[in-house]
Amino acid sequence: MRFTSEQRFDDGVLERGFTLGEVPGILWTPEPAPAPAPLVLLGHPGGLAGMYPRLLDRARHAAAEGFAAATIELPGSGDRPRSAAAEEARADLRRAVRAGEPVPDEVVDRLVLPLVDEAVPEWRAALDALLPLPGIGGPVGFSGGVISIGVRLAVVEPRISAALLFAGSYVPRAIVEEARRVTIPLLVLLQWDDEGNDRQMALNLFDAFGSAEKTLHANTGGHTGVPRFEGDDGNRFFVRHLR
Amino acid sequence: MRFTSEQRFDDGVLERGFTLGEVPGILWTPEPAPAPAPLVLLGHPGGLAGMYPRLLDRARHAAAEGFAAATIELPGSGDRPRSAAAEEARADLRRAVRAGEPVPDEVVDRLVLPLVDEAVPEWRAALDALLPLPGIGGPVGFSGGVISIGVRLAVVEPRISAALLFAGSYVPRAIVEEARRVTIPLLVLLQWDDEGNDRQMALNLFDAFGSAEKTLHANTGGHTGVPRFEGDDGNRFFVRHLR
Repeated sequence: MRFTSEQRFDDGVLERGFTLGEVPGILWTPEPAPAPAPLVLLGHPGGLAGMYPRLLDRARHAAAEGFAAATIELPGSGDRPRSAAAEEARADLRRAVRAGEPVPDEVVDRLVLPLVDEAVPEWRAALDALLPLPGIGGPVGFSGGVISIGVRLAVVEPRISAALLFAGSYVPRAIVEEARRVTIPLLVLLQWDDEGNDRQMALNLFDAFGSAEKTLHANTGGHTGVPRFEGDDGNRFFVRHLR
Repeated sequence: MRFTSEQRFDDGVLERGFTLGEVPGILWTPEPAPAPAPLVLLGHPGGLAGMYPRLLDRARHAAAEGFAAATIELPGSGDRPRSAAAEEARADLRRAVRAGEPVPDEVVDRLVLPLVDEAVPEWRAALDALLPLPGIGGPVGFSGGVISIGVRLAVVEPRISAALLFAGSYVPRAIVEEARRVTIPLLVLLQWDDEGNDRQMALNLFDAFGSAEKTLHANTGGHTGVPRFEGDDGNRFFVRHLR
């Protein structure tokens, strides 16, 4: 892990860009840091540059509760090499959506499963690199999407103690089956009027989770219309489970 | 309105029993009261005596945020005269549930619609009597069930500014239609594994509400298993909308 940039915001949050092998990422730590600060991994749909304003906002919100936050670029997004297979699957998905047809399961599988298979080991490697840093400790939460990445991480990564998952992307059937093996506390956010999201599929996924404590927060509005108060609710969820 | 009893709890909450005509009720006010305290009406499924511990808990939780709380007995519950028609409808409903059959719409209509028609004017009369009391002011919230009573109140009673509705009872089709005319901010609680509740019906009702701000909180667990943290979330919902 190599730090590539550093800036401090007026609320005392320290932002550091880093690379982990070929994978760029960002780490935000609160100042003064409680020792050690729990870490929240910030999931996103890919494209750190475009997502930066929203990620920064989420990170500073988390820092206000004393949490460190970190994110890494997804495979095939930002400056990372594209996958021809993923681009083809994305084109097939767009074609179905434009035609008003249901998106075939096999298209969702081709788009999402390789992404999950590639991304999850990278997020785990990021944990290996981040957790030993001074001022950062466990436990760890995952917050955001791609929801299939969050599901797989919740199943395979024992260092993740709680997850706040954003419904709103296509979920392969195999991931719904994996969801039954998730046992950590979950808060699932669903935008009720999300144009690009299958509401029933999101409810089916919520139903599938094996966790004894799982909560769904559904709100009116489209994909990017998550109400501000859900940021506070998310912080309280992590306060309950990471402190 | 006639006060019939008075006791003060060690957190300073003053509890007063009252009768309003034939209808018994309870009023809880925080001490010291912010002047004037917003009022939260506490809905329940009927039977004040049996519901008292949970109502008291909800009232003290609300009082901790500076809210007054009040409730009244439902028609046909507690010491109030039974309705033969309602008893018959309830028996028909139990028969269908015991037989594992879907509950016919007309049974739900016979059970719930007369209750709503009778109860809603009583809750409005309670508001007329409570709001002029010293230390109590507007705005007003409704919190609880019977959800059909909450829907009707939200439609017809302009003094109610926000409602926290508990899904978990049968809802007549006519009430789902009324829900489209609700415009106040809503928080709907749904127990995901509620044995006595039709989950899809609750989701359909949530979908029907016309409110620009509506939020669904669904949690694992049965009818009475609402997690403690939802009490805090409910308070914050009312703080956003009643202050």
